[in-house]
Amino acid sequence: MQFKKLHTEMYSKARAGLISTDHGEIETPIFMPVGTQATVKTLSPQDLKEIQARIILGNTYHLYLRPGHELISNFGGLHQFMGWNGPILTDSGGYQVFSLKDLRKIDEEGVTFRSHLDGSSHRFTPEHVFEIQRHLGSDIMMVLDECPPYPSTREYAEKSNAITIKWAGIQRELYEKKRPVHGYSQWLFGIVQGSVYEDIRTYSAEELIKMDFPGYAIGGLAVGEPKEDMYRLTDLCTGILPENKPRYLMGVGTPEDLLESIERGVDMFDCVMPTRNARNGTVFTANGKMVLKAARFREDPKPIDSACACYTCSNFSRAYLRHLYNTNEILGLRLSTLHNLHFYLWLVRQARTHILENSFSEWKKNILPKVTSIIKN
Amino acid sequence: MQFKKLHTEMYSKARAGLISTDHGEIETPIFMPVGTQATVKTLSPQDLKEIQARIILGNTYHLYLRPGHELISNFGGLHQFMGWNGPILTDSGGYQVFSLKDLRKIDEEGVTFRSHLDGSSHRFTPEHVFEIQRHLGSDIMMVLDECPPYPSTREYAEKSNAITIKWAGIQRELYEKKRPVHGYSQWLFGIVQGSVYEDIRTYSAEELIKMDFPGYAIGGLAVGEPKEDMYRLTDLCTGILPENKPRYLMGVGTPEDLLESIERGVDMFDCVMPTRNARNGTVFTANGKMVLKAARFREDPKPIDSACACYTCSNFSRAYLRHLYNTNEILGLRLSTLHNLHFYLWLVRQARTHILENSFSEWKKNILPKVTSIIKN
Repeated sequence: MQFKKLHTEMYSKARAGLISTDHGEIETPIFMPVGTQATVKTLSPQDLKEIQARIILGNTYHLYLRPGHELISNFGGLHQFMGWNGPILTDSGGYQVFSLKDLRKIDEEGVTFRSHLDGSSHRFTPEHVFEIQRHLGSDIMMVLDECPPYPSTREYAEKSNAITIKWAGIQRELYEKKRPVHGYSQWLFGIVQGSVYEDIRTYSAEELIKMDFPGYAIGGLAVGEPKEDMYRLTDLCTGILPENKPRYLMGVGTPEDLLESIERGVDMFDCVMPTRNARNGTVFTANGKMVLKAARFREDPKPIDSACACYTCSNFSRAYLRHLYNTNEILGLRLSTLHNLHFYLWLVRQARTHILENSFSEWKKNILPKVTSIIKN
Repeated sequence: MQFKKLHTEMYSKARAGLISTDHGEIETPIFMPVGTQATVKTLSPQDLKEIQARIILGNTYHLYLRPGHELISNFGGLHQFMGWNGPILTDSGGYQVFSLKDLRKIDEEGVTFRSHLDGSSHRFTPEHVFEIQRHLGSDIMMVLDECPPYPSTREYAEKSNAITIKWAGIQRELYEKKRPVHGYSQWLFGIVQGSVYEDIRTYSAEELIKMDFPGYAIGGLAVGEPKEDMYRLTDLCTGILPENKPRYLMGVGTPEDLLESIERGVDMFDCVMPTRNARNGTVFTANGKMVLKAARFREDPKPIDSACACYTCSNFSRAYLRHLYNTNEILGLRLSTLHNLHFYLWLVRQARTHILENSFSEWKKNILPKVTSIIKN
């Protein structure tokens, strides 16, 4: 596996790059559709190919509970199990476990938690999570970290980060020693934490860099802090992280967030927003977002976006989509999901083209007011 | 529009035919996937093309309530509205309205009912239902009839049939006078009723034949009567109905029912079984049916049916499909629906091929014990 930084825009930190994996190449910046339970909700692998998805994300916590990583491993890994032959990134499961609040207990060696499904007791340690992901066979594995909630005190953030760094070290060593289970290469990314504290973020990044990971994520953002903090801390981290390694901003975000973060030097994104919002009837376009259920679209013969080339916009009216939502028809969820992901992937492809032509900053300035508006007709 | 009977098998009444509509040709016998609310649940028009669906069914009652036939008409008809450019048949809405039981009242001129959605009051008359279907723009419209419940007394069946015949006459006359709304041809089918009473069925068929409809349906079966009655009455009706007109057995049925009815001279079928059962996790194959949720499929790497050429069987294991059901993932509903409809359409294509080769009866004898069995491994 390999990452090549191809170009940085003359007027910003925005980068165009290329990640090569044993399951295919990924042009960056890239958005990764979230496929929590071995499926990007409502879509088939064929749909994902059609919207030019290049890498998808799986959730270790969910896959560990159902159907179990051993079962998936027996199928030759997650790619084979779910019929997706492109690259896959798995998270560490940490974020989900720490979100369980009353159902989990952290100590220096790991975290004990109860399943949200049946209350059964489980334990994630750095060693265990690493093994799970090896067996899932993701192209990119993430270290187990602790993601402090917002707000966190400086004290808590410091203590939490010490554990995260310690765990990162354990996993980095395992990564050195262990061979892939399924015969193809896997990468392990470190995750920068530190809440909103610049010095802790800096320390976290520097410690991880010493360990020399194949790539770095920025975690613990988009958890409720003001947007300015998110952008500022992203900027700080990308300023420290090495130029020749991919950077992944976890759990982000809106179209606006993507543009702002690409400008600050981020290469990879994932977020449930395009898929979850689609299922709630909210769709994104280059001209803003719209709530398809609104009565004003009842007889609207226009597609969501007449400039969009996706299957949904090529074939169906807003009125038809609204009808599908109105009647609780599953096809509506799928057609909107397809559109939203198509748009997110179009957006990052556009960004890349403009980066390569040194026109990203200009393009971003023009498109930003549009993507953040609300479409009324 | 046109129907050509091409061949009757030497050893049975099984027929192969060809229906030509302004939206394409339909080789018979054919199964029509049910698209109640302007969508075959979980599938896109593209999916329907891929499984070689040739004609789908829409439900007048549902479309009248949501989004309304005027709205659909303003879009140029149901084909345009839902993005399906193949033939469509609409039912009359009668079956749904009469199923409302306490919410409807029949008189000689029509039926007054309350919407199951909001309790609002509506009235269907032969004239109104005919107008709704003209505006929906279905290729094949059905007359408003009364479908007597099972069991019904002879007295009730006779009285009900008199109304059905009267309404059929009214609609047949309107069909003669009125031009299509959307510029392409529409057919109107009469519906033979008469519950389980052979003489009433005979009378019903003969009266309708006098009116010379483009095609005839057999209604009021598969409503709870014993299978023997259903097959016997189907046989009776096809014995009376003209050879040169298509025959449609409404709401039928299991793979077994299709084979038995094709043998008795039926050309067209519709049923929610393949779609509804798919959503419940039951799939059909040439070797029987299986309940995908069963624990024994937890680690089963085989497809539903290794001989099946559908997208689902070409790409996914029983274990993966079971996982999707287990985690309530929408993709599971879609992949199973796709498979089940693919199987039903494969079954009628196979039947047709065998009819043309005079091997239908032999083939049916061999496949019947298989399709009615339960797959355990």
